[in-house]
Amino acid sequence: MEITEVKLLTIIAEAVLEPQLIEVVEEKGAGGYTITDARGSGSRGVRSAGWTHNGNIRLEVICTSDVADDIAACLRERYYADYAMVLFVTDVGVLRPDKF
Amino acid sequence: MEITEVKLLTIIAEAVLEPQLIEVVEEKGAGGYTITDARGSGSRGVRSAGWTHNGNIRLEVICTSDVADDIAACLRERYYADYAMVLFVTDVGVLRPDKF
Amino acid sequence: MEITEVKLLTIIAEAVLEPQLIEVVEEKGAGGYTITDARGSGSRGVRSAGWTHNGNIRLEVICTSDVADDIAACLRERYYADYAMVLFVTDVGVLRPDKF
Repeated sequence: MEITEVKLLTIIAEAVLEPQLIEVVEEKGAGGYTITDARGSGSRGVRSAGWTHNGNIRLEVICTSDVADDIAACLRERYYADYAMVLFVTDVGVLRPDKF
Repeated sequence: MEITEVKLLTIIAEAVLEPQLIEVVEEKGAGGYTITDARGSGSRGVRSAGWTHNGNIRLEVICTSDVADDIAACLRERYYADYAMVLFVTDVGVLRPDKF
Repeated sequence: MEITEVKLLTIIAEAVLEPQLIEVVEEKGAGGYTITDARGSGSRGVRSAGWTHNGNIRLEVICTSDVADDIAACLRERYYADYAMVLFVTDVGVLRPDKF
């Protein structure tokens, strides 16, 4: 089985941001994305100490390290100050490399 | 805390394939699976350039490297040509090794 | 992009345990959590050989290795004997380290 090492970028954010997140992901050149509805708790934005337990989404993108960086930088600039958002990157091996 | 290194195989596919995916996962000897409903966008099958934003599922299996390979090989042979499907493998540490 | 290496602890458990899981996660000092609804199959508890295909949840926590250990130890002591539960840990890089 041929495996290609890539990055899985996971973005957990308020559901209201879904259209904006998709726009950024597509704009930065990711070949696709997967969204699941989620709920949770965490600190909300860097300007607020409040906590939320509202509708969240979990958006996953398989991409190169560079694309993950571009997406993260863009989201940080636009949304970190005002929205609850968590981004993390995992090393994964993809079994269908021709799709990315 | 005793940790055993295993593989987490994640399959993102069209929801219509759920019964077939479960059959393959069980046939290849995985001890269990977890499914979440998802949506997303990506290229659809190797025979088509179309894009979908339909109902997807995200199926996760914790298994050995060999079982992950067997599942992936089987899915590739049967479904890659005609269905949107992404497979990726992550190294994870399981905290309840006796269950796999 | 500054990245901090942390742990992603994923807990897959029967949905009925959601309030107890949240309590443990908060008690052990995690800064937040994300829950998605899931379904699946797997062996149920160490005292039973039965299988279930009931409502599950998938709870994710980004935390330090020590917090992951504390949560896992607590869950193992309280729930492993009687409930279906799978815990696994993944190394992830977080892009907003000030939030954990």
